Amino acid sequence: MKLASFTHAGGAGFGPVEGETVRDLAGRLPGIGDLKALIEGLDAAAVKAAAADAPVLKLADVTLRPPVPGAEKLWCIGVNYGNRNEEYKDGSDLPKYPSLFVRSASSFVGHGVPLERPTVSEQLDYEGEIAMVIGRAGRHIPQERALEHVFGLTLCNEGTVRDWLRHGKFNVTQGKNFDRSGSLGPWIVTADELDPGSELTLETRVNGELRQRDTTANLMFPFARLIAYLSSFATLLPGDVIVTGTPTGAGVRLDPPVWLKPGDVVEVSVAGIGTLSNGVCDEVRRDG
Amino acid sequence: MKLASFTHAGGAGFGPVEGETVRDLAGRLPGIGDLKALIEGLDAAAVKAAAADAPVLKLADVTLRPPVPGAEKLWCIGVNYGNRNEEYKDGSDLPKYPSLFVRSASSFVGHGVPLERPTVSEQLDYEGEIAMVIGRAGRHIPQERALEHVFGLTLCNEGTVRDWLRHGKFNVTQGKNFDRSGSLGPWIVTADELDPGSELTLETRVNGELRQRDTTANLMFPFARLIAYLSSFATLLPGDVIVTGTPTGAGVRLDPPVWLKPGDVVEVSVAGIGTLSNGVCDEVRRDG
Repeated sequence: MKLASFTHAGGAGFGPVEGETVRDLAGRLPGIGDLKALIEGLDAAAVKAAAADAPVLKLADVTLRPPVPGAEKLWCIGVNYGNRNEEYKDGSDLPKYPSLFVRSASSFVGHGVPLERPTVSEQLDYEGEIAMVIGRAGRHIPQERALEHVFGLTLCNEGTVRDWLRHGKFNVTQGKNFDRSGSLGPWIVTADELDPGSELTLETRVNGELRQRDTTANLMFPFARLIAYLSSFATLLPGDVIVTGTPTGAGVRLDPPVWLKPGDVVEVSVAGIGTLSNGVCDEVRRDG
Repeated sequence: MKLASFTHAGGAGFGPVEGETVRDLAGRLPGIGDLKALIEGLDAAAVKAAAADAPVLKLADVTLRPPVPGAEKLWCIGVNYGNRNEEYKDGSDLPKYPSLFVRSASSFVGHGVPLERPTVSEQLDYEGEIAMVIGRAGRHIPQERALEHVFGLTLCNEGTVRDWLRHGKFNVTQGKNFDRSGSLGPWIVTADELDPGSELTLETRVNGELRQRDTTANLMFPFARLIAYLSSFATLLPGDVIVTGTPTGAGVRLDPPVWLKPGDVVEVSVAGIGTLSNGVCDEVRRDG
């Protein structure tokens, strides 16, 4: 099953995607007002029954949102593909623990919505990634059972404002939290449809040109290990999102670096999940 | 006005604190189900009217929660008191930008609830801090108008697991995100009652012994500057929490370092806000 969150005619909706359509389950499952609540109280049979007579909308007629509105945690893993660590050429050995930072919900848009290049920097860059959505809560989850806690997978363009990454002495927070600088989506593919433990090939294209390509076989910290590690200090909750790191080939690593500019289109693709596509525009001033 | 969030008899409540009591506004303001919604739709007259005949509960009979459940952002500023930067003795000049990291809601408990020392580390440490709660949304907020966006102030024990701070190469996320390792509260004091621009003296005591004492006059990045800076890259939203940094004197800086242990009591105090007090216990296993 593919599950999406969206807005349509000014209201929020969510439901299963089938081909070029999505069914809107809003108001059709008692006590379940969004995809996060659906994940928490998952009853696949009830979802199927409710979907059967739910309104059918064309995907082209809705605005997709990041799949899990209201997720408590949007955790992101730094450098995680083996050959990307080499890209840093700093002589450091392979890390013992994953690098971890946090993004806020406001930093993401959904599929098809333009990323915004901020007024304060020209260094907007892409990072194609696979994201896990947690389905079952847990703390101290053993690695060998970790994938049982995965509800499904989605894609992330973990858009980054490079020159703001090192504003802080110890953290990359600023460069990772510009409003609408990244994207999540287009939907969640549930774990029964795509095994999160299978080898997945991730590709990122800018204006059709392949920039990133790697497979999850090269992850330094595979999905199951990430879940075990993160849950050693924090309870993972249904709807939590773990963005699992990006391969080599972001714009900053080109020589000279190439930043995203208005009119560009970035596509992040994994066979079995789909393609997350976003244009780029200049920051839209929304403040009064 | 002082406003608190709490649980009572298994349900969630929120409302104004008066002396040793709190009034429960749950179900008494149309469309306002928690303190975050109250901040978003603030109508002080309606709050007062609803409070007049709301149930009165003894504070001793409720369990206080962090004041803003469901805050989108819980942003924390690193090293921010002038003399604390010197504590690092690394010869670095005063930083140009604040250091910023993020905590998740699960990492905090409310006033009176024990902090949990994790099973995987003995290095649980305190950091007393003042936290701003945003009342009015804004992006690119000019510094001279920044304090108009503050709904009120609360206190934070920004509890930290020291040896996990440097697990990551670039970020402190892990050591700052242990479940129930920090606290927020006891309540929010609104800006009309306590001017967020006034000089405030922050004190932290462990088992009654004064460990931290400094005033906001020594902040390298005062509250207004933090709001201007953060809003230069992200929209601040009602209910967002900005934890503004800790003075010298955390346990890690004692020689030898002294960590928190079960039975300790940590108190963070600011005149005009109150005292945030938490005991310490060993991690409670909640996983099935």
